[in-house]
This record gives sequence, structure tokens and C-alpha cells, in this order.
Amino acid sequence: MEKRIYNFSAGPAVLPEEVLKEAQENLFALPGVGMSILEISHRSKTFDKIINEAKEDLRKLLDINDNYELLFLQGGASLQFSMVPLNLMKNNKADYIITGSWSKKALKEAKRVGTINIAASTEEEKFKRIPKQDELKLDPSADYVHFTSNNTIYGTQWHTEPGVGNVPLVCDASSDILHRKIDVNKYALIYAGAQKNMGPAGVTFVVIRKDMLERSSDSLHTMLNYKIHVENASLYNTPTTFGIYIIGLIAKWLLKNGGLENMYKVNFDKANLLYNCIDESGGFFKGHAAKDSRSLMNVTFNLTTEELEKKLIAEASAAGFDGLKGHRSVGGLRASIYNAFPPKGVEDLVSFMKDFQQKNG
Amino acid sequence: MEKRIYNFSAGPAVLPEEVLKEAQENLFALPGVGMSILEISHRSKTFDKIINEAKEDLRKLLDINDNYELLFLQGGASLQFSMVPLNLMKNNKADYIITGSWSKKALKEAKRVGTINIAASTEEEKFKRIPKQDELKLDPSADYVHFTSNNTIYGTQWHTEPGVGNVPLVCDASSDILHRKIDVNKYALIYAGAQKNMGPAGVTFVVIRKDMLERSSDSLHTMLNYKIHVENASLYNTPTTFGIYIIGLIAKWLLKNGGLENMYKVNFDKANLLYNCIDESGGFFKGHAAKDSRSLMNVTFNLTTEELEKKLIAEASAAGFDGLKGHRSVGGLRASIYNAFPPKGVEDLVSFMKDFQQKNG
Repeated sequence: MEKRIYNFSAGPAVLPEEVLKEAQENLFALPGVGMSILEISHRSKTFDKIINEAKEDLRKLLDINDNYELLFLQGGASLQFSMVPLNLMKNNKADYIITGSWSKKALKEAKRVGTINIAASTEEEKFKRIPKQDELKLDPSADYVHFTSNNTIYGTQWHTEPGVGNVPLVCDASSDILHRKIDVNKYALIYAGAQKNMGPAGVTFVVIRKDMLERSSDSLHTMLNYKIHVENASLYNTPTTFGIYIIGLIAKWLLKNGGLENMYKVNFDKANLLYNCIDESGGFFKGHAAKDSRSLMNVTFNLTTEELEKKLIAEASAAGFDGLKGHRSVGGLRASIYNAFPPKGVEDLVSFMKDFQQKNG
Repeated sequence: MEKRIYNFSAGPAVLPEEVLKEAQENLFALPGVGMSILEISHRSKTFDKIINEAKEDLRKLLDINDNYELLFLQGGASLQFSMVPLNLMKNNKADYIITGSWSKKALKEAKRVGTINIAASTEEEKFKRIPKQDELKLDPSADYVHFTSNNTIYGTQWHTEPGVGNVPLVCDASSDILHRKIDVNKYALIYAGAQKNMGPAGVTFVVIRKDMLERSSDSLHTMLNYKIHVENASLYNTPTTFGIYIIGLIAKWLLKNGGLENMYKVNFDKANLLYNCIDESGGFFKGHAAKDSRSLMNVTFNLTTEELEKKLIAEASAAGFDGLKGHRSVGGLRASIYNAFPPKGVEDLVSFMKDFQQKNG
């Protein structure tokens, strides 16, 4: 069996080994089916069971009640940046909270549809933090408020949802969905590209409150219309069948391992280990994000010089720690430690970092 | 190893066993990479090599010159039904040739964008045939002409492109791309959902002539803009990495097995075997499509009664021939025999059909 390395990539990202092994075992032919998951019809009984179980398991994991519909779409969060305003803007105005590059991309598409109020932005502070509740300049008559729950590039994360009163709350949760239990009832719509915590690239998960569907106009292009996708239970056209299958396996893996309560505990411990190493380094390592805005998914930090950063990345890579280079817009280092990233990998990285500090500090 | 059955499904459909085996072997970790194809970054060197080789191999297979760009997008042919008119209509008028349900779906979205001239339709004849050249009522000032090269539901196929003069020709080739060599230079744009001849569901292949890109307006939503996808070499956002990997393996499998010249020969022989069995049955089996419009990909036929059809489907299914039930809008039977469907499976089906006729004729 091929040796695996530690994958700190921001996404697509590490998946649970058990899930990979099961998918591998059954890739040539699903047991009792005689065809590969790559070959079966999306309208077959076999796939019906796969997609329905995936939905049910996700409902269980996130306690999603019947007031919400679940969709598996294509086009990533990037297509949602357009679908959200196209479907949900009924009075052509919405509030956007800007906490990083992805929020800005969402904003760009929304501006094509209506008038956007920027409720808050931390761009002037290099997106080092999440805005505080009393900084939000919300419009009570907005069609919705949009925010990005976790900012992969800057390593910041909302630890509690922005309070938005009765205005529908919309969240891009691409990079932290399923990392802990959230109260879905606070949201009107949640979307997430699967390729971080949920599965492989090519599937977008959408949770939409049923009353939102009334806003989808018949004049929308069919593939951009949430209502049509709901009416067709994500099978208006052929979905990414394999991706949905893997999401189903991951949901079962989460349920088997204590659900999201346990996942949160593991994620909290993993991140803490790394943040403690940074904070206790006496300035050798320096976290990018403000402490109260730190992400449990993406730990961003710098060293005192770019030269040292390059050295650490090179030596780490040679030692089997892959993907630690920070995003070009921030520089430094980034360790993405999503759900499936093994705690042992964080422990090993911390040892490596301490060792590096001793030799270079 | 799990036993495999004969999969006559219209799509997602059978894939080459060699490709499935290679994908299976490497699913846990790509050789020398230490991560699964499901986990690697779309911006990594490993994936760069995968996507670039897939493109080069597809260029070789279809003799595509530098005058064309190749894209791997999401959303299936269904999203192309919208993207084509949104990008290519500059004077808001286009010609559509209607040869089946998929043409009609493409038409529906195009009508949201501009005025459509139906250049021909064989709907009154239950889409049993492809219109002849002299039936086409083309507008020489149309922005483009759209046609569907193969009609999965009705089992018809264009054996040569419609002649459209200097008007850009756009083709939905979802169900017969790569089944033979075509002269790409006749086309302005070809699109295809991968899930029949190319790979798993979740990737859309687009070949676009460079001059068409001038038509993409900056006001388009980013994910719907061909020009932006070309400028970003299909990596504006995270693509369906696994699907592109499988497409790459299939392109290599085709090149290794004599390219599209040989594939066409194999496809021709497979289809002929089945059509001969139908034609020589003395009316026991009856082909749906007109002889000169028959598809090499989807062989549609009826028996004399619905009861007999049900019986044959049930007995075939028990004998390991899956997916023979015709589409609900046509009824009868449909054997989809795409590139990867093994000749032996067609031979076995023909024996089975002859045997069934002997017992029930």
C-alpha cells in the first residue's frame, strides 16, 4: 500500500483513511450491484439509497428539521455567489459582511443583482479579525445578510453567528461545515463546497429553509433555480454521483465517531495544540489572526523573516508535512486541519516546529 | 473481486475495466504523491500534470488545434443550455434544430436570452429521424446554430454535421463525443457532459473556438462566463478534480487502443450486430429510429406488445443485462452501448434476444 503523508492543504483536503479504503475496495463494483459507483444511473435504486442516506445522515449530524431542504448541486461555492442573490433578492437589497477574499467574491456577484450594503468589513486590518456585533451596520429591511463562517486564507472564524434579527441569514460555510454542531434554525440558507470537510471537489451542499423557495422566480435559468432543484430532489440533471457517495461515507464516519460533538472536541484540541505552540514560542512564531477570531480549521502564522519561513516550509515538506505554504495574499504559513486531519499529524508538526525553533531560534 | 454485470444504462454509463482498476489501485494514494486524488489541491503540481495531460490527450484524439480552447466545467450539459446563449448571443437571435428532449431543454433556456428560430423539428414524427439538410430553415444572420449530435432517448444520431455556412455551429455532443473522429474545425463550440463516453458525472467538457470568447460580456456572472474560465485554464474555482483525473485515464485508454478510428470501427460493429438482430427478426423486434438516422450509441427498439417488452426486460435483468428499459417518453427497450461497452456484451445480448424470440415468437 502506498505510504501517505500529512496533507495540510486548504482544500481539496485530507479525507478519512477509513473512507478512502472503503471507496477503494468498492470502486470496481459496488457489493451486490455489479457496477462501479462511477457507472450507475443517478435514477437507479442503488443511487436513490445512496443519496437519501447521505441526506438523512447529514440531517442527523446537523439536527436539520423538515423546515429545511437539502440539495447537492454543482459549481462550488462560486456558483452560489450568484445563485444566492439571483434567487433570494426580492427587493434587490442585501447586507454583506466582508471578512476575507471569499466574502469579496460573493459580494462581486451580488452587486450584479442588486444594491449591497456592506454591513462591516475588516479589510483595513488585513482581515485579521471577525467584526464584533456592535460594529454591524445592518439594514432591517434587507432581503438577507450574507457572511462567511470561516476564512481559509486569513485563518479567522465566527465563533457565533452574527445577530441579524428577523432578516434571513445566509452563510458560506465551505470551509467549516460539519466541524461542530450549529443551530441551523438561525439560518435561512447555508451553502458549502464539499472539498474541505465533506468530500471531494465537485459537489456543493445547500441547506435552504422552505420559505425561501417562494423567492425563486420562474424567469431564472433552470440550473440556477433553487426551487427546481428542490422539486427534483437534486436530480433535475445528473449530479456528481461519486462525490455524493463519498459525502455519504463521510457522514457515516462522523456518526460512527461520536458525531459533531466529538468532532468539535477533537478539532478544538488539535487547533489548541498548534496555537499554544505559536503563543509559547516567545515571538519566534506569530499568529496572523486576532486571538478571539482564530479559526479551528486554518491556522495561519508567520516567522520573523521570509527566509526562515521558506526554510521551514522546505524542511517540513521533506519531512512529509505537505501544503504548509500560506496563501499568496497573506504569505507565511497555513496549517489546514479539517475534520479528517489526524491529531497525530498536529502533534508531529508541533514537535517539528519546536525542533526547528531550537535549531534556528 | 466483485462480479460485474452488463450495464446498458444511458448515462452515467459503463467505463473501461482497465480504467476502473487503475483508479481503484491508486485511490488511497497516488504513486509517489502520498495523497489520494480526492485530497490533492487543484493548484498542486500533481494536478497540473493531470489536467494538462488530459487536455493534450483529448487534443490528440480529436485533432484539436490551437484555434480552440478546452475547458472542464461543472453543471453538466444542462448548465451549458444557459451558458451558450448567455455568452454567444450578440444580436439576440439563434437557430435551434430540435431532434429530441435534450434539444428542447436547450431551446427552453435559450428562449430566456433571445429570439430563437426553430430551423427544423422532427417532433411530429416522434423524433424518429434527423432532419435532412434541405429541410433546415436557417437564418444566415443568426448568432449561431445549435444541434444535438446524438439523441439518447430516441436513438437517433447525426451522421454528418448540418451545413450552416458561415454561421457558428454549436453542438451538444454529450452522448456521442469521442465515439468517432469529427472535424472540430466545423464547430464554434462543442459541449458534453462527461458521464457517457468520457468519464463519471460531474464534469462538462467544452471545446470553444477562440473568436467566440470575444462575445462573453463582462456583465455575465463570473461562473457563467467562458472567457473567465479560459483565462483561468478551468481553475477559476475548484473543478471536479477526480472526474478530470478519470477523463485523463479514459483518454489514455483510447489512445492506447487505436484512438478514435478504431473506436468508431468497434462502435460500428457493435451497433450493427444489434441492428441486424432487430432487422432480421421478421418483425418480432422493431427499431424505433429511421434506418438512416440510427444511433451507434443508443439502440432503441420495441416488441409487438408491452407485455413481451416487460418480460424480456425482466428476464434480461435476471441474466445480468442491466438498464435495458427504454426512456419513459418512448417506452420499449434501449441498449446504450457507449465506447466502453464491451463487444462481448452485445454478442451475449444478441444471443439472449434470439433465444427469447425462439421461446416467445
